Parts: sequence; structure tokens; C-alpha cells
Amino acid sequence: MKDRLYLYDTTLRDGAQTNGVDFTLSDKLAIAHMLAEIGIDYIEGGYPGANPLDTELFAQAHSIGATFTAFGMTRRPGRSAANDPGMAMLLDAHADAICFVAKTWDYHVRVALETTPEENLASIRDSVAAAKARDREVLVDCEHFFDGFKANPDFALACAETAWREGARWVVLCDTNGGTLPHEVERIVGEVVKRVPGAHVGIHAHNDTEQAVANSLAAVRAGARQIQGTLNGLGERCGNANLMSLIPTLKLKPAYADHLEIGVDDAALGRLTRVSRRLDEMLNRAPNRHAPYVGASAFVTKAGIHASAILKDPATYEHVAPEAVGNRRDLLVSDQGGRSNVLAELARIGLTVDKNDPRIGTLLDVVKERQAIGYAYESAPASFELLARRVFGTVPDYVEVLKFDVNVEHRINALNKRVTATVAVVKVQVGDGEPLISAAEGIGPVHALDLALRKDLGKYQEYIQGLELTDYRVRILDGGTGAVTRVLIESQDETGASWTTVGVSPNIIDASFQALMDSIVYKLVRSGAPA
Amino acid sequence: MKDRLYLYDTTLRDGAQTNGVDFTLSDKLAIAHMLAEIGIDYIEGGYPGANPLDTELFAQAHSIGATFTAFGMTRRPGRSAANDPGMAMLLDAHADAICFVAKTWDYHVRVALETTPEENLASIRDSVAAAKARDREVLVDCEHFFDGFKANPDFALACAETAWREGARWVVLCDTNGGTLPHEVERIVGEVVKRVPGAHVGIHAHNDTEQAVANSLAAVRAGARQIQGTLNGLGERCGNANLMSLIPTLKLKPAYADHLEIGVDDAALGRLTRVSRRLDEMLNRAPNRHAPYVGASAFVTKAGIHASAILKDPATYEHVAPEAVGNRRDLLVSDQGGRSNVLAELARIGLTVDKNDPRIGTLLDVVKERQAIGYAYESAPASFELLARRVFGTVPDYVEVLKFDVNVEHRINALNKRVTATVAVVKVQVGDGEPLISAAEGIGPVHALDLALRKDLGKYQEYIQGLELTDYRVRILDGGTGAVTRVLIESQDETGASWTTVGVSPNIIDASFQALMDSIVYKLVRSGAPA
Repeated sequence: MKDRLYLYDTTLRDGAQTNGVDFTLSDKLAIAHMLAEIGIDYIEGGYPGANPLDTELFAQAHSIGATFTAFGMTRRPGRSAANDPGMAMLLDAHADAICFVAKTWDYHVRVALETTPEENLASIRDSVAAAKARDREVLVDCEHFFDGFKANPDFALACAETAWREGARWVVLCDTNGGTLPHEVERIVGEVVKRVPGAHVGIHAHNDTEQAVANSLAAVRAGARQIQGTLNGLGERCGNANLMSLIPTLKLKPAYADHLEIGVDDAALGRLTRVSRRLDEMLNRAPNRHAPYVGASAFVTKAGIHASAILKDPATYEHVAPEAVGNRRDLLVSDQGGRSNVLAELARIGLTVDKNDPRIGTLLDVVKERQAIGYAYESAPASFELLARRVFGTVPDYVEVLKFDVNVEHRINALNKRVTATVAVVKVQVGDGEPLISAAEGIGPVHALDLALRKDLGKYQEYIQGLELTDYRVRILDGGTGAVTRVLIESQDETGASWTTVGVSPNIIDASFQALMDSIVYKLVRSGAPA
Repeated sequence: MKDRLYLYDTTLRDGAQTNGVDFTLSDKLAIAHMLAEIGIDYIEGGYPGANPLDTELFAQAHSIGATFTAFGMTRRPGRSAANDPGMAMLLDAHADAICFVAKTWDYHVRVALETTPEENLASIRDSVAAAKARDREVLVDCEHFFDGFKANPDFALACAETAWREGARWVVLCDTNGGTLPHEVERIVGEVVKRVPGAHVGIHAHNDTEQAVANSLAAVRAGARQIQGTLNGLGERCGNANLMSLIPTLKLKPAYADHLEIGVDDAALGRLTRVSRRLDEMLNRAPNRHAPYVGASAFVTKAGIHASAILKDPATYEHVAPEAVGNRRDLLVSDQGGRSNVLAELARIGLTVDKNDPRIGTLLDVVKERQAIGYAYESAPASFELLARRVFGTVPDYVEVLKFDVNVEHRINALNKRVTATVAVVKVQVGDGEPLISAAEGIGPVHALDLALRKDLGKYQEYIQGLELTDYRVRILDGGTGAVTRVLIESQDETGASWTTVGVSPNIIDASFQALMDSIVYKLVRSGAPA
């Protein structure tokens, strides 16, 4: 009989405080749906009252499946709960639960709140009571709990116990400044569970010593049964406890999985990588390739030191199976990957070749050369596929761009306003006829070039009608404007399929052109367009 | 009397296996110097024999200050140490120490090496003996030790003990696949130190469950006295144990600092942030803003919930002082920062204003508006300074760009080669005379525009002679080519001072233009150029 361990996500509240992250209302709703879909038990939706967007969110999202939780402060000292406008907004929000953050470090009570320990305890009691009177499930976040315990353990424990005795379902111990160490967390939580049953104790860790995950697990080992964290470890400063690292560990490591059950089932676990990437896309953040479990490189091994016998049994070099979390084991297509890696990639794209075919060596050499100057084929599988198909001789010469011209003109117009006009002109040879010339205006030079390239490709125009550019990423390698630019372009077609292509050049327009052309040719190949 | 804890860096060997990282010889030398400068005890320089670059590195770097260590495998089964060419290269390398990686999981011994446990132990003994005969300090990395211990504890322990008894200075327990949990590490290391004294035991952890730091500290608590890690947590898959997170914890947290001493002194600790950033620059990797201790956001708090009384005593909300690691406490210049943050920034740039000056509100509004459309002032302090100076009315109208035209032409030349020509033409008004027109060719459009803008600014030309662009970073916000582009430009002048400016526009050339102009005007302001 396993103990139930609950997961509480604060991506929409604590995660929203991340430097550079700003959620729109529809972002928040989408994220809430993703969280419920994974099997998260509690979703902290935000801070209604403090944030008008959150008030609206609660109006729309409370029937989402998980326990939708509003966050706010305990009633202000010297007021009653009924006379506290912040409290009123919290109680009125359409939430299943309310999480109050309470002071539990006597220094903060004296200096920040300018009140007494007794008044602080009363404020905890009154807030919990007010929420229970409105039929809400109640949680109390004990702010700076571990520092508070170190400074004055009796007071900190009194705050925790008071919250529980008044009827809080959960007393959550927060390492608010992230500086507590795992062995300290284990010891202190061990003291708390003598006063508040572990089944009612939660942990809220921050990553300031890079131990938020370890702190969360340490608390669980000491008896806590709720972990608060965020997707992708989002959060201010160094982030909150990363649910993408915690969930697979709790599900796949016997030390935890044998004794504890979480709300995430195996199918949901298999969606974890996708959810991680979707969140990054939504926030337009570069994914962390090295993220545990879900990172693109998490199961990628570069060193060629594995004997093939070992390769046959991944359990001998991988700590968990990548498929369990929806990730993949990529043997890099790189100069250090070797023949077996390339053969695996060729098989994946449907090119059957004899393993002694000399063109494999040719392909390896070309890949190695190009990656040395900046091409990143593991990020651009469609470009790799074209390259491979070209080496093995199977890509028709559909179109040849004879010339292009991109012009950006910036001036002050008659109304004394600064305006910019961007025009691209392209001349292409398609089959045998006359060259085709197209022109297009765009918002920027690459946009204009993209539109011009796809405007008239003669007999191939029908094949590229549904093609659109969905993402454009630029990276300058080696710094400066004279340096090499790598462009990655993601495209999508009418069937919903998407692919990524790459271009590299010291000139960003040339780099973009390469990636755009690869995408067009890839689409023609995919569509089986006749040569 | 404190125990000495040794730090061993494997950035140049294990870190070099990071996806996307490739070190040149001069990179490796520069990193080795940085490591010795911080006070790292051992530098694993590489894999001489396997990598020709490393053979050269050892020839040049061995007198660097730390114990320079060569890495390689124990002698191959069935050969003698004298008959193993890989061993010969290792023994011949100009290293102070040699670190052998040995199998310690019986499964790998049988299946990968296809040999017997006895032969494996002999291979450990012979390798250690051969290195000691050449007066090298010897370390033995026990590969997959924790999985090996779980599968067959007697064999794993025998390997470890054999290495020590033969004369290895260090027996390093490696969590090669990164899947071991901290409480397991603590327990297993506790068993090892019954056979090998803790003062001779090291830990080499990987971050596959996001607990490499916690695993390293758990091993130390069980008695180990060497930690192996990398700068910035570099390493394949999810990285190695991050020395930038470990060093400050070991120096600043009493739980460790009271009992253990490391080779990093307080001054070296104060240089840690700078070393972290330099390494990222060298590798052209975007720094992790959220990195513990050294990240740009590590001590940045966005929420306005701190009472000013608390702000006066940072110890109440920060777990360590940022200055100790050479970092800073930044109160964000953002819409959530408020008046006090902006006043602090204004003071920093030398603009003394009355705290009730209504222009502060104006500045706050402009900053908020612009950041909503993509400007990132916390990354571009020089642009913020110009903005502030303009709001407070103190920036002369030095130059006005009336028009610019940037053209990129790509064609197939007479030799059937694809060539690209990029030209920028700029028309500027300087003071009262005739407009000045300049043209320049560049490698790419921004390069051409930069050269044209700085070619002839009339009476201001002398002030910008020493100006050069040292870094150019592009980020597309909201995806696609029609989206907003943010450009950050770092510039440097003849005094060695450097500054960063920002530009935002859907058109990348316009965005670059803004950042370039801000840089030029900033230089003119700095130089005190007359209006």
C-alpha cells in the first residue's frame, strides 16, 4: 500500500516571476490545461487581486480538473479578515483552494510586518478560518521557514502547527531564499512532522545552491507528502524545484516508486518531454538541451567508447529509458559519431544502404567539414536528410536560384516619421523555360526573401502552396558582425508536418537563404514532385 | 583543525564531450590558467594519445600551478602495461598525475572487456604500478561504481581497494550514468570508506537526475575528500557536477566551511562570476542567467513584496552576499521594479535627482512600454542610460541619420560561383553643414551598416575612431520572420571600456541600426563631445 504524494505546480505564480517571462491570459490557460493533462494535483493559478489578469483567469479556469488554487497573503496585522480587501479578493476568486503565504521567521514578523508573534499566529488562524468558512481547501505557505526555524524553532513550529490545527489541509515549508541544504531540510522536516503529520506537510524549494530537487526529495524522505515546483524549473533567481526532474525520478527510481504514488500515470510521463518543449516554445525560450530527462541531449552520448555489445543493452549505460519520458536516445550525427550513428540516421530517413558503401565515408566527411564551420545537423534533420540524399544521388534539381537582391531602405518621410521599406527580388530557373522573376515586400529582409522565393516556382508552385515558415532562430558563432551566422528555420506544411533546416554564412541573408531553399526542396522531395 | 577537501576539474576532458563544445588548444590553455587562478587542485587536461590536441597541450601546460593530470584507460586485458600503446602515450605525457578509468561493474568486465574479474583487478594493479614507476601521482576513476556496487558490491569494493593498496593517491567513485540518488551515494560511500580511507576517496557525479551537486556533497558527508566537476557544469548529456555551485557552498555555508578547507581562497571566490562568464564567452554559449551564485539573475528579485526595512538588511532575503562570488544584487529596471529601483540605477550612472521628480514616473512609463515590446534594459545598461539622460534632458543632438540603404545581392558569377555583395549607404546630418553621405561594403548587412555609420561623422569622427563592435546578439521574440527582433550590441573603445546597447524592431536591420546608433551616441556622451 503506497503513500500518496501530491504535486503542486506554481508555474503560473512563482514561475511568472522569472526574469524575462510574461504570461498572457491564454498562455496561462494553455499551461493550466497542460498541467492537468500531466496529472498535477494542484495548480496555483496566480495572485487574484494583485494581478487583474489572474482575476480573469480564475473566472475562466477553475473547472480544469486539478485543484485550482489562489495565492495570497494572510490577513494584514491589526485588521480582521473581513476588513482586509486583499483577503476579500482571495475569498471571492473562483478557486477550489486558497494558499496563504504566512511569515514564520520572527525577525520578519517584527521588522517587515511590524507586529508581534501572537498577532502573526492570530492572522494565520483567522485567514485559515475565513477560507474554510467559504468551503475552500486551505494551504499555508510558511515563508522563510528553514531560516525561521534556525533562528527561532519554537516560533516557526508554532506557526506551522497553528495552521494545521485551524484546519489547513497542507502546511508547506518554504525555503524562500533557496539557501538551505538537503541534510538540513531532512533534519528540520523531521522535527516538523512531530507536530504536523507528514501527510499534511509540503515542501517548496528554490534552486539557489542547485539543490531544489534534492531538497524536495529530502523533505519527502523525512515524511512530507506534497512537493511544490514548476515546469522546467521556472522561477525567479535560480528557479523553483523542477517538476521535469522530479516526476521521472519519483516514477522510475525504485527508492521512491516502490513506496509512493503520484498523480502522473505512465502515459502522462511519456508526454513530459513534449510538454517541456511546448512550454519553451510558448515562452520563446531556448530549450535547455542539457535538462535532465527531457533535454535534447539528456540521452545523447558523444564518446565512441561504448563497445557495440554494450550498445545492445542500453540499461548498461543509461540510467532510465528515454522513451519513458517521451525522449529519444540520439547518437549524434557528428564527427565523433562514426559510421554506426550515420547508418542509424540513414535507416531512420528510409535510405537503405550497404554498411560498406563508400559513400557513407563521403557523407561523414562532408558532415564533419560542415559542422566545423557551424552547421548543426542534429538540430536540422531535414537539412541532414537532403545532404544524405544528395550524397546518395537522389535529389532532383528542381529549382535554381540565379540571383536574389534584398534591399532595406530607411528614411524620414514627408510626415517626419521614420519608415523602413524592405523589398526582395528573386530570379529562378525552373526546368527549361525562361527564368522567373518575382518580387515581394516584407517586414524584414528574411521575410521578404522568403515571400519572393515562394511566390512563383512555375510548375512546382502547387507543391509549395501550403508551406509556411513557423520559426526562425539565429545564432552568431564567434561573436561580432563579421562572424558566422547560423540560421535554423522551422517550416510546416498543409498536412501539419513540420521540419527544421539550417543555413550558415558570415552573411545572415545568405544563411537564411540556404535554410529557406533547403526547406523548399525538402517539401518538393516529400511531396514526390517530379524532376 | 579542518580537513582538506580537494577539487578536481575535468572541463577539458569530460566537459569537452559537451554537445556543441569544441576547444582549440589555446582555449584549453586559457581555461587551464583560469582554473589554476581560482585555486583548483587538479586539472584533467585531456586524453593524450586519443586526441592529438591533448598531446600538444600537455607539452605546453604542465607547469601551470595545479596538478596537471592525464586521463586514460587501464591497460587492456591480456596485455602487459609495457605492451599497451595507449598506456605508453599516457605514461609519456608531460603530466604530474595520471587518472586511469577502470571498470568496476562486473557486467561491463564480462561483456565490454570480455575478460574476467581477476584480469580486471590485475589490470588495475599493473596500471597503477606502471604510473608510480614513472613518478606520477595516480588516481583511479571507478567507472559506473554505484551501479557496479548495487550489482556486485564485493567486486566493486575489491576494485577500489586494489587501486588504493597498489598506491593510488585517489580512488574516485564515478556515477557514470548519473542515475544514483544522494541518499544512495551517502550509504555506498559510507561502505567504501571502511575499506579505503576517506582522505583517499573522491566522487565524480553527473547531473542526470539534477542532483550532481547534492551527490557530491553527500559523498563528502560520508567521508570523501575529493570532488570532481566542471566549470559551469559542462559535460555531455546533463553535465558534470557544477563547480560554480559547489565552490560557493563549500566556502560560504557553515555546514561545510566550518569543517573543510578547499584550495579556493576568498579573493579567488570573488572572481568566480567573471570566470563563469569568460568561459561562456569563449565557448560562445549564452550564459545561464539562472545559474546559482554566478548567474545574472541569481540575486535579482522581481517581486515588489519586500518592505524597505527588509531591503536594508539583505541577509533577511538573500542566502549569501552576491559580492562574495563577484556577482551583484540587481533590482530589475522593469515595470515591476518601481521607483526605488530606478533611483538606484540613476544614482549608479551619476544622475542625481530628487526622489519626487515627476520625470522618474515618465522614465518608468517609457521603460515599461518599451520592455513590453521587447527592449531588455537590464541587458543593455548603456541604452538605459541614454534613455534616462534623454528623459532628464541632457543628451545633445549630435548626429541625425536622414536615410540609410542596405543592399544584399547574391548571384552566380562568370566562374559559375555563387557570390554575395553587401553594400550600405548612409546619409547623416551633423551640425549645420551639408549632409554627409558614406558608403561601405561589409560581410553582412549589419557589418556594412556599422562601417558606413562610423565612416564619416564630420566633427565627431575623432571621438569615435577607437570604437569597435565586439559582440552582436540576435533574438527573435515570438517566432517567425515577421516577428520582433531584439539586437544586443557590445562595443568597446580605445580605453578598453565596453558597453551594451539594444535595438528592437520587426526588421532586423532597423533593430541593429538602433543599437548601433545608441552605441555611437553613448560614446559621444562618454567622451564629453560638445553639442
